[in-house]
Amino acid sequence: MSLWFSENYADGVVFSIKVNKQLASVKSEFQQIDVYDSDDLGRILVIDDYLMLTEKDEFIYHEMLVHVPMAVHPKVEQILVIGAGDGGIVRELTRYDYVKKIDLVEIDEMVIKVCREFFPQIASKFDDARVNIHIQDGLEYVKYCQNQYDLIIVDSTDPVGPGEALFTEDFYRNCYKALKDDGIMVNQHESPFYPIDVAGMKKAHKKIYRVFDISEVYQAHIPTYASGHWLFGFASKKYHPTRDFNADRWNSLGIKTKYYNTDLHIGAFALPNYVKELLKEAENEV
Amino acid sequence: MSLWFSENYADGVVFSIKVNKQLASVKSEFQQIDVYDSDDLGRILVIDDYLMLTEKDEFIYHEMLVHVPMAVHPKVEQILVIGAGDGGIVRELTRYDYVKKIDLVEIDEMVIKVCREFFPQIASKFDDARVNIHIQDGLEYVKYCQNQYDLIIVDSTDPVGPGEALFTEDFYRNCYKALKDDGIMVNQHESPFYPIDVAGMKKAHKKIYRVFDISEVYQAHIPTYASGHWLFGFASKKYHPTRDFNADRWNSLGIKTKYYNTDLHIGAFALPNYVKELLKEAENEV
Repeated sequence: MSLWFSENYADGVVFSIKVNKQLASVKSEFQQIDVYDSDDLGRILVIDDYLMLTEKDEFIYHEMLVHVPMAVHPKVEQILVIGAGDGGIVRELTRYDYVKKIDLVEIDEMVIKVCREFFPQIASKFDDARVNIHIQDGLEYVKYCQNQYDLIIVDSTDPVGPGEALFTEDFYRNCYKALKDDGIMVNQHESPFYPIDVAGMKKAHKKIYRVFDISEVYQAHIPTYASGHWLFGFASKKYHPTRDFNADRWNSLGIKTKYYNTDLHIGAFALPNYVKELLKEAENEV
Repeated sequence: MSLWFSENYADGVVFSIKVNKQLASVKSEFQQIDVYDSDDLGRILVIDDYLMLTEKDEFIYHEMLVHVPMAVHPKVEQILVIGAGDGGIVRELTRYDYVKKIDLVEIDEMVIKVCREFFPQIASKFDDARVNIHIQDGLEYVKYCQNQYDLIIVDSTDPVGPGEALFTEDFYRNCYKALKDDGIMVNQHESPFYPIDVAGMKKAHKKIYRVFDISEVYQAHIPTYASGHWLFGFASKKYHPTRDFNADRWNSLGIKTKYYNTDLHIGAFALPNYVKELLKEAENEV
């Protein structure tokens, strides 16, 4: 017998991972959560049939969503993380000594429970004293926040199911309001290649561009996500992601990373022409 | 009925493309050449069951293998291209008016024939007066060249089958000899993620590093290649790929590209830490 997890990148494009066994299968109030073990990619987390992470390459996504804004803002102390129930974002954030408070808002407590049990190297810092877990809808939580955070990280699923609310203009406006005057928001921004991901990318960019003073997009090589070319949004009230970036300051912190470095920080914002054109199309729809 | 082309990235990782029909299937003296049509990625070229290119993303590979060295060397006039029977490299090279001669050495005439027929937008410049096609083993051809080329482009298949000879130290030494004193060699350099590609990457890097004065590696997002994170080698006798790079000169040429731009040129050489470590391991084997 041979058991495969398959994900469609398009109607006629499929990525498949051979799995040894299913370690967990939980139907939560919000979604279907599955954990599989594989030889080639380690354990994998699947939500509503979409691959969320693999042990082999999760460091790329988590490092890029955390260290890029942390290397731009001179002193992030108050942080709001939306989604991120697997714990990877929190793990990276707790490496900064000067961070004072991390509010993690996850709608589905079951994701945290499953990841604590099956991904202990990822869900490793939930018990850090600075971390406050709020089991709540991120959209609701952020409504009541004002001028409070230095950094908001939106670690959403794709814009379907519970993740969809995190791609609305209302949500981004509330994030803007929740940030201090020099605050930064970064978000999972989909991908520029397969049509369904391009639609998500443009949807997010159009709205963030409308709400924030500075709205740039950066990229990383994430092998197990569709096309391997994944994007993140960097939205800000004050700091530009490359012009206001101080490589020496970040390097002096001595944080050891497997993907991120300060040369790559600049390179991540150097997008291919075809991606810049897609983003420009989204901006012109405004 | 549903027909799929599948490629294994690892024993338990498969990438599959739904194809409408097979347009060509030719067994040449050297290899099996197949052409399929697909809805999502256009026509695709397959050699010995490995995906060589798709119409949808071939521009990325071809632009990155051509425009990066062309933007570093101030005046490439004499060029040797090894492999590249699909014509994509030649198409990009002929966009430079100042190029005087392009020697294309392809071992398998059948690849050229098939691509002329089924990929007319890629094999579009074989009839340019500056192009000389040599149906010959690249390894043999380059043995008899000395101090002759400004640029050598090694557009090899993977290091198995006929492509294997293009990953030997002998071959790289002959390329070195075939180049002028300020010559550049670029090559298809495999990928840093799945083990079989990592082996090819290290094999190539170790040898090129041993032969050339300057040996750097750069990257691109190529969605239909394994992991989407593809590498290229930049080896040179004199010019450093970023320090000797003149963005203004290249931009003044007015060449319109879909992927490459001069900011991305710098970014392409900013590799993730884990890739730098793998390359360092290969260098230390020397």
